[in-house]
Amino acid sequence: MEKPFVIGIDMGGTNTVFGIVDARGHVRARSSIKTQQYADINDYVNTLSDEMMKLVDSVGGIEMIRGIGAGAPNANYYTGNIEHAANLPWKGVIPFARMLSERMGVPCAITNDANAAAMGEMTYGAARGMKDFIMITLGTGVGSGIVVDGRVVYGHDGFAGELGHAIAVRENGRLCGCGRHGCLETYASANGLARTAREILSRSEKPSLLRQLDSENITSKDVYDAAVQGDQVALDIFNFTGRILGEKLADFVTFSAPEAIVLFGGLTKAGDYITKPIHEAMEANMLPVWKGKVKLLLSDLKEADAAVLGASALAWDLPQA
Amino acid sequence: MEKPFVIGIDMGGTNTVFGIVDARGHVRARSSIKTQQYADINDYVNTLSDEMMKLVDSVGGIEMIRGIGAGAPNANYYTGNIEHAANLPWKGVIPFARMLSERMGVPCAITNDANAAAMGEMTYGAARGMKDFIMITLGTGVGSGIVVDGRVVYGHDGFAGELGHAIAVRENGRLCGCGRHGCLETYASANGLARTAREILSRSEKPSLLRQLDSENITSKDVYDAAVQGDQVALDIFNFTGRILGEKLADFVTFSAPEAIVLFGGLTKAGDYITKPIHEAMEANMLPVWKGKVKLLLSDLKEADAAVLGASALAWDLPQA
Repeated sequence: MEKPFVIGIDMGGTNTVFGIVDARGHVRARSSIKTQQYADINDYVNTLSDEMMKLVDSVGGIEMIRGIGAGAPNANYYTGNIEHAANLPWKGVIPFARMLSERMGVPCAITNDANAAAMGEMTYGAARGMKDFIMITLGTGVGSGIVVDGRVVYGHDGFAGELGHAIAVRENGRLCGCGRHGCLETYASANGLARTAREILSRSEKPSLLRQLDSENITSKDVYDAAVQGDQVALDIFNFTGRILGEKLADFVTFSAPEAIVLFGGLTKAGDYITKPIHEAMEANMLPVWKGKVKLLLSDLKEADAAVLGASALAWDLPQA
Repeated sequence: MEKPFVIGIDMGGTNTVFGIVDARGHVRARSSIKTQQYADINDYVNTLSDEMMKLVDSVGGIEMIRGIGAGAPNANYYTGNIEHAANLPWKGVIPFARMLSERMGVPCAITNDANAAAMGEMTYGAARGMKDFIMITLGTGVGSGIVVDGRVVYGHDGFAGELGHAIAVRENGRLCGCGRHGCLETYASANGLARTAREILSRSEKPSLLRQLDSENITSKDVYDAAVQGDQVALDIFNFTGRILGEKLADFVTFSAPEAIVLFGGLTKAGDYITKPIHEAMEANMLPVWKGKVKLLLSDLKEADAAVLGASALAWDLPQA
């Protein structure tokens, strides 16, 4: 079989994780480097390439590799550039895809991590075979990747799919890192859940297991653990979060009429505690034509592999030299 | 030149208007029939075809026609069916594209009028040369056609692009014909503007030229005429309407990062009185990455021709036998 593997790179502010992936979505080899150790982008690309070549050699050499896909903050799919990424050590516009491609001798594509996640679900995961779906990543923030007719929506400038910054609460909405108020991300992210927990705890005197914790650092895991114990405040937190998210999901459906919405990220580990209120609010707010018709799915990619798989999925369709 | 013309059909509840269109967007011949006169879809298709053939003969015969595009309520692009359209005389699912294509001997495609409008702007109008834009039609209701990478977004079921039913006002939103509350359509349509006029007039005692009119039948033309006289209530009505619409337009941009948003319909005739508050609210609510970058355009197709042109634009790309 000609060129049976691709490489996926998940570039984060702290670590850069990468792996060699086969067509069935198995990670054959993996490694990582520390992103922050390389103040110069050339040093970073050199080390990353050297480390990747070790993996490449272990699967039979570079002629086995079809291409490289990378998920990175502020990555522009059209240009291959990383543009002004606040969480990375390099300022300005970095022609990352070109640099890596020249160094490795195979084609390279990049996009942001939510778009990569959507590619991963479509190629190996819960959205296999689907042509129209919306990927929502519920992490520190809320990301999205929108697939229309089998292709990720990149928009005019390459940055489409910022549904975490769709306005969920118009009146007295929470201040978002983007400078605006009421963004979905301020409610449905890990930080948003913690804010909700603090608000609900301070608004009432209701007893709760969560009162034993430092309210600044409450996680969805803490809230889940309390919910399992039947803690009503914990249930209220999930219900509020799920309702806000579900309302917006119904709104998103009016845009692209997807077959499914796929959720990924820490928040989804709360299982029914969060997915039930999401689904109920989504259906309660759905335009009649789509009521009961849009699937709400959870990612079925292994969490440890998902980011590398998603990035790798970009590489299958790269034009070959 | 091989097959230089297409036919566009604008099927409304009252009239069906159709015309022969050339590649530059000129309507070479046009006619119409009364939709409601045909209780049987077969009679309708027969009469429509006979009347179209008269026009076809006037431009040199059916071998000059590349295909037919039709804009109709509840039209499914994928199937070519009109499905349960409340405003048309025929119940159930009508295989309209197939019926017309068999009768006329040329291929036929259908979609709803907002998607047709988007095709019209991309082919002949304000969005010529654009690959990513959003069309918003401000008529009795609010319709939308979304173009991503040069193609209309139809979604999984063929009915994507219902931005008139995105929720604009979550708390105490107005009841919409769809049964839900707060849809954009209940604010930014002709009916929505009239509701706003009644609300603003009844909420205060402020003198206004609009108090001389029957408040049940106030139109955007009436409000425009008053605004031209410097009527503050009229300006308030446009400002409120424009703000609600502009806020949602900023939200829509997070989805597909369009190059432009193109507005069409009666409301846009109010000129700066409505476009200025729309644009201000859009920019005030825009995510920083898109601030000042998304054009807000008005359709530049002649109003009388726009629906036929839009429908006709569907036909240029039809596969030829």
